Amino acid sequence: MFVALEILGLVAFAASGALAAVRARLDIFGVTVLGITTALGGGIIRDVLLGIQPPTTLRTWPYLAACAATALLVFAFHPQLARLRRAVLLADAVGLGMFATAGTAIALDAGVPAYTACLIGMTTGIGGGALRDVLLREIPLVLRKDIYALAALAGAVLVAAGDALRLPQAPVTLGAAAFVVALRVVALWRRWNAPVPRGTG
Amino acid sequence: MFVALEILGLVAFAASGALAAVRARLDIFGVTVLGITTALGGGIIRDVLLGIQPPTTLRTWPYLAACAATALLVFAFHPQLARLRRAVLLADAVGLGMFATAGTAIALDAGVPAYTACLIGMTTGIGGGALRDVLLREIPLVLRKDIYALAALAGAVLVAAGDALRLPQAPVTLGAAAFVVALRVVALWRRWNAPVPRGTG
Amino acid sequence: MFVALEILGLVAFAASGALAAVRARLDIFGVTVLGITTALGGGIIRDVLLGIQPPTTLRTWPYLAACAATALLVFAFHPQLARLRRAVLLADAVGLGMFATAGTAIALDAGVPAYTACLIGMTTGIGGGALRDVLLREIPLVLRKDIYALAALAGAVLVAAGDALRLPQAPVTLGAAAFVVALRVVALWRRWNAPVPRGTG
Repeated sequence: MFVALEILGLVAFAASGALAAVRARLDIFGVTVLGITTALGGGIIRDVLLGIQPPTTLRTWPYLAACAATALLVFAFHPQLARLRRAVLLADAVGLGMFATAGTAIALDAGVPAYTACLIGMTTGIGGGALRDVLLREIPLVLRKDIYALAALAGAVLVAAGDALRLPQAPVTLGAAAFVVALRVVALWRRWNAPVPRGTG
Repeated sequence: MFVALEILGLVAFAASGALAAVRARLDIFGVTVLGITTALGGGIIRDVLLGIQPPTTLRTWPYLAACAATALLVFAFHPQLARLRRAVLLADAVGLGMFATAGTAIALDAGVPAYTACLIGMTTGIGGGALRDVLLREIPLVLRKDIYALAALAGAVLVAAGDALRLPQAPVTLGAAAFVVALRVVALWRRWNAPVPRGTG
Repeated sequence: MFVALEILGLVAFAASGALAAVRARLDIFGVTVLGITTALGGGIIRDVLLGIQPPTTLRTWPYLAACAATALLVFAFHPQLARLRRAVLLADAVGLGMFATAGTAIALDAGVPAYTACLIGMTTGIGGGALRDVLLREIPLVLRKDIYALAALAGAVLVAAGDALRLPQAPVTLGAAAFVVALRVVALWRRWNAPVPRGTG
């Protein structure tokens, strides 16, 4: 169940990384490497923070194979240039939701307190996309988009709350993931804006 | 005692991150996230290098609360635009001093040799600010400012020397932290310059 | 034997970082810090992924001394400006070969499976250079150069294959390292190009 959620998140983040690399006009190797890095980055950070070494994603080859296949498919069949930006944001939203919630559940299973699990889950969701943007010399989405970190945190808190109430973990995590994705999509669609500092407009 | 020093460092780095984010015209969420990342970054790197997992700063909520409150205060009451650059540098100097020295003391307490403790302490001091600058697409202060890494190293060596001489740790660490801050402030104030490579001027 | 290979890789990466810093017109401290960071970065990432904490390179001072000496020599005797770019790429190729293969051998010695060892070795080779480029605000070589990650992976797979066939580790690792360096040098010399995404030319 978690594996399915994680693979979905991996594929979504691999697509977002590969799409961003296409947009930056990297070649086929750059597209593949950035897709893989974006997809595996969050989980590697999570495992290092939890002390799971070597990280899970470096131990099971289907993860890497799924990322590489996704990146190559994106390279071959990417959308029109004009739509690349939106495609990156959409794939990123799906990856964020899956990873923030699955990351929180994995941290809880590893026995850390709920507060720590939420922060680690949030970091798992944010990490891969931040790595992608830094490697392409862009200011990460998490700093520019209004409810990016907040959406990830909301998903993490929902998973931790479900755990505290002893609800079944699988459906709660899935629901929380869907909630995060919906939040991000609505924020993108309605162009929600947050206040900016006074005097800098 | 250390906790007080660490909280002071956290607040200073959170302020430097939030001020830099205001300068980059990020919104209220970006200011908060960058403040927190700058403040917690160095300590997380230190704990990962020492094998303290999950990192201390992700386990105790007052740390995060202090950072978030600082970032929000900066967002509400930041100085005039013209003074932002200097405010970032000053807050950064305080954070550098606190973290480089407290990081060295924590590493010594974890039982690593003095040489390793100095390097880890230095990294703790440098890490948060480097993360802040990379996320805002700037070349990190540590590469541009003359005695930045050297000041951190001096503070770390003072703490390790005090430890070797069996001096009481708390006053030595505090004195070393003050020394680092003073070094950085004087360097900023006097605009000390280091030699640049021949033929590139 | 490994130590010699690792020192050679460290010196090469320290030179590549210092040369890149000279090219970016950093001062003597920036040149030293970037040389050290580039050289130690890959090994620190490797040790954190393997759970070797604190990392080896932070425990033995000759490593750091070799890096600092290399960076200072580069600062004093760097080549003509026009040749800096090529010098960075060449030093980077040597570092990549040494670190990707030695990293794989070290991971195998730590008892991880061959698949994981190859990924960790590849990351060791790529990590330092990626750090160098991100700190200087450049898109990392690994995303821009055609057979960069592939060359590192080839070297890692050769080492793992030699291990599976129970061949003596030292000569295999040395041969694999030479193969990676040769691949990169030929790719640079012949300006091999990989396909770029359709419609973005």
